[in-house]
Amino acid sequence: MPASISSKVRTPIVLVNFKTYLESTGENALRLAKVCEKVSLETKLCVCVAPQFVDIARVAGEVSIPVFSQHIDPVSAGSFTGHVLPESIKEAGAIGTLVNHSERRLKLADIDGVITRAHETNLITVVCSNNALVSVAAASLKPDMIAVEPPELIGTGIPVSKAKPEVVSGTVDLVKRVNRDVVILCGAGITRGEDAAAALRLGTEGVLVASGIVKAKDPYAALIEFAEAMLK
Amino acid sequence: MPASISSKVRTPIVLVNFKTYLESTGENALRLAKVCEKVSLETKLCVCVAPQFVDIARVAGEVSIPVFSQHIDPVSAGSFTGHVLPESIKEAGAIGTLVNHSERRLKLADIDGVITRAHETNLITVVCSNNALVSVAAASLKPDMIAVEPPELIGTGIPVSKAKPEVVSGTVDLVKRVNRDVVILCGAGITRGEDAAAALRLGTEGVLVASGIVKAKDPYAALIEFAEAMLK
Amino acid sequence: MPASISSKVRTPIVLVNFKTYLESTGENALRLAKVCEKVSLETKLCVCVAPQFVDIARVAGEVSIPVFSQHIDPVSAGSFTGHVLPESIKEAGAIGTLVNHSERRLKLADIDGVITRAHETNLITVVCSNNALVSVAAASLKPDMIAVEPPELIGTGIPVSKAKPEVVSGTVDLVKRVNRDVVILCGAGITRGEDAAAALRLGTEGVLVASGIVKAKDPYAALIEFAEAMLK
Amino acid sequence: MPASISSKVRTPIVLVNFKTYLESTGENALRLAKVCEKVSLETKLCVCVAPQFVDIARVAGEVSIPVFSQHIDPVSAGSFTGHVLPESIKEAGAIGTLVNHSERRLKLADIDGVITRAHETNLITVVCSNNALVSVAAASLKPDMIAVEPPELIGTGIPVSKAKPEVVSGTVDLVKRVNRDVVILCGAGITRGEDAAAALRLGTEGVLVASGIVKAKDPYAALIEFAEAMLK
Repeated sequence: MPASISSKVRTPIVLVNFKTYLESTGENALRLAKVCEKVSLETKLCVCVAPQFVDIARVAGEVSIPVFSQHIDPVSAGSFTGHVLPESIKEAGAIGTLVNHSERRLKLADIDGVITRAHETNLITVVCSNNALVSVAAASLKPDMIAVEPPELIGTGIPVSKAKPEVVSGTVDLVKRVNRDVVILCGAGITRGEDAAAALRLGTEGVLVASGIVKAKDPYAALIEFAEAMLK
Repeated sequence: MPASISSKVRTPIVLVNFKTYLESTGENALRLAKVCEKVSLETKLCVCVAPQFVDIARVAGEVSIPVFSQHIDPVSAGSFTGHVLPESIKEAGAIGTLVNHSERRLKLADIDGVITRAHETNLITVVCSNNALVSVAAASLKPDMIAVEPPELIGTGIPVSKAKPEVVSGTVDLVKRVNRDVVILCGAGITRGEDAAAALRLGTEGVLVASGIVKAKDPYAALIEFAEAMLK
Repeated sequence: MPASISSKVRTPIVLVNFKTYLESTGENALRLAKVCEKVSLETKLCVCVAPQFVDIARVAGEVSIPVFSQHIDPVSAGSFTGHVLPESIKEAGAIGTLVNHSERRLKLADIDGVITRAHETNLITVVCSNNALVSVAAASLKPDMIAVEPPELIGTGIPVSKAKPEVVSGTVDLVKRVNRDVVILCGAGITRGEDAAAALRLGTEGVLVASGIVKAKDPYAALIEFAEAMLK
Repeated sequence: MPASISSKVRTPIVLVNFKTYLESTGENALRLAKVCEKVSLETKLCVCVAPQFVDIARVAGEVSIPVFSQHIDPVSAGSFTGHVLPESIKEAGAIGTLVNHSERRLKLADIDGVITRAHETNLITVVCSNNALVSVAAASLKPDMIAVEPPELIGTGIPVSKAKPEVVSGTVDLVKRVNRDVVILCGAGITRGEDAAAALRLGTEGVLVASGIVKAKDPYAALIEFAEAMLK
């Protein structure tokens, strides 16, 4: 992992995507981020959060763990009403951003544009992909991290690390050949510590989770389970 | 103007779109919003601001004037990574949102969806349109306001109220026939008080401005000029 | 119905959308169009067909019934690789086009642009909408026809005329208030003659159908059933 | 070049993109395609044409040179109104398709989807890219050809082979490292035989041209000039 990233996150990583759940909007976003911070401080697991745009500044202002945006646009300062300027989330305290999540797919040239703008603004990029080949294509664009997620498993509770281990290990194999520096995460259906541990055994350095934590009855307990499974 | 709107804004309105200019991002957004508030308090002109998503909470927390979002998505709480949930900007303190700005055009069915969601969350909608006929189509969907802006004049400094007065008065005529309650604004190229006053004479109840204020050498002086011209 | 339309189609109309079914691609498109023509000649029902772009020229060259495109782009001649130039489908023999089908939704300003370009090239426009309010918005843009189709019923076999008659009659009521000239069709789930007859009783002048005909065991028999129910 | 491609095209290639110019629509498409065929027969230069969807069948039916589509959608047979089914252009006589042209950019996952569908239907894919890094990303997805075109030069008459030779040679270098089989073309601003010859010297195996041929006063003479420069 290059120094530009290792100064901000450490592996293994759990990146919690807050999506647009009410359980992780506004006051709830802050509360959940504090739970993530608590687990991070207690266990030393690197727990990162990706709240909605509106909540980034407040979350980043009140917790010490890394905060990501869920998306940025490939734009520079100017006339781009309703777009997300990389500088805006940087100034709000985010250290990086998801890119091309399956719920917010981008054109190929725009992924390249986003990564370029993220480098200019010193933001870490986590590019999402849907299979091993697309992961390699994404890795060619020199992002900091890749998160492979078969879209058909997202939100199902069927963990990618069990249902499609070959997508995960195939991504690791192929991506490492073209870009050894990129950190590989996987996601989709991950709700249990054992799913996350299985992801690490397949060669990833962490997981991207959403409902598994956000909608857990007890997010603290769920994250502690992740920490115990991933750090042992 | 229905009570649902008149309790929050009063006409004439100057709605300042912060777009993604650096002069209106982060700390600068707050500073500019305070200038807008100052003019509003001194002159009684209703000055509203539309900062970037990330800046809404802080701006709304520190100024007393109405705050709008630049966009919301037609989604409910759920799995919509990278989207703007209406509830999120409401909780952050916005009272409404721009919809379908020429730099963030929406599909017709999504404009309907956004207006429906905005009503559910008690947000004021300002739907942007590019000509009189599109304004009527937009007005049919029962938004609170329409802002007609010929895209080719946006950012030019050539005011729509001078260059294309027939687009403005045509919009007023046609829209009032199908929806008497809707508040009509116009925009594009408006930088001087006299342009804004001309817009009112053409039958609108306010203006949508961006670079004319955000990039003015002295935004305070520029807004005072608007106030003097619009309130006399 | 204005003369510009009545010279090309007559009501009641059955407009068969070929979508991208294999049963209506290439040779199969031609065969199905000939079945539609046969029923039209035998029963005097106005049966129109909307094959894929690639098949328009051949279908229009070999049948005498009206041929529609499934989509056109709001572009003029120029640098628009991969777009559908209105002039191209006109020259190929189409007399009109679907616009904004639920499987090919357009931005509001682009619907206006498409209708403008269609008028310039003398093409009939059939704008699809998803509910009564959106139908009114679409009708404001002065298309020749509106086809209201609740997307959740498309392809289900549950006919809109039974499941959501209020969407159909509401569209008829509201649209006729703003645009008396527009021809109103409805669609979604229509597979039986009685569904089509019910649509006429609700005030429409025809139906938009797809799988109900294309995937029928015997498209000829299915269309004859439509003709008998709609013409009695 | 793999046998799957070499049986259909041979290098060097001139691929003429007809875009939506009137000079290459309908009857004009056929006439221009015949000029391309004439030059191909006379000089043995492999001239390919990419007419609009509507014109593919007729062009492919009347000329012996390879015909490409300008775009296909990543869809299978089904409910995709207004989309371009790979099978439809195959049956119409096309041997391949442009993908992700700068005027019809696709999402990354959709480029992968298009290439997958093209393989299934035995269509050659020519994926367009805007710079060397994006070319590598595209090449990772295993298309048959890459066409690198800096968008800012398209239609300018300023040839990429002179204005940005490093983009072309950089693409050749980087792409060949990850995918030796892919055929590399370049485009943008190419109007003269010498521009095309320069493209070959930079390591490409052909050019993608549009207005340089379509809008030439004498397309035959222009193509003969290409042939002389590229084949010597």
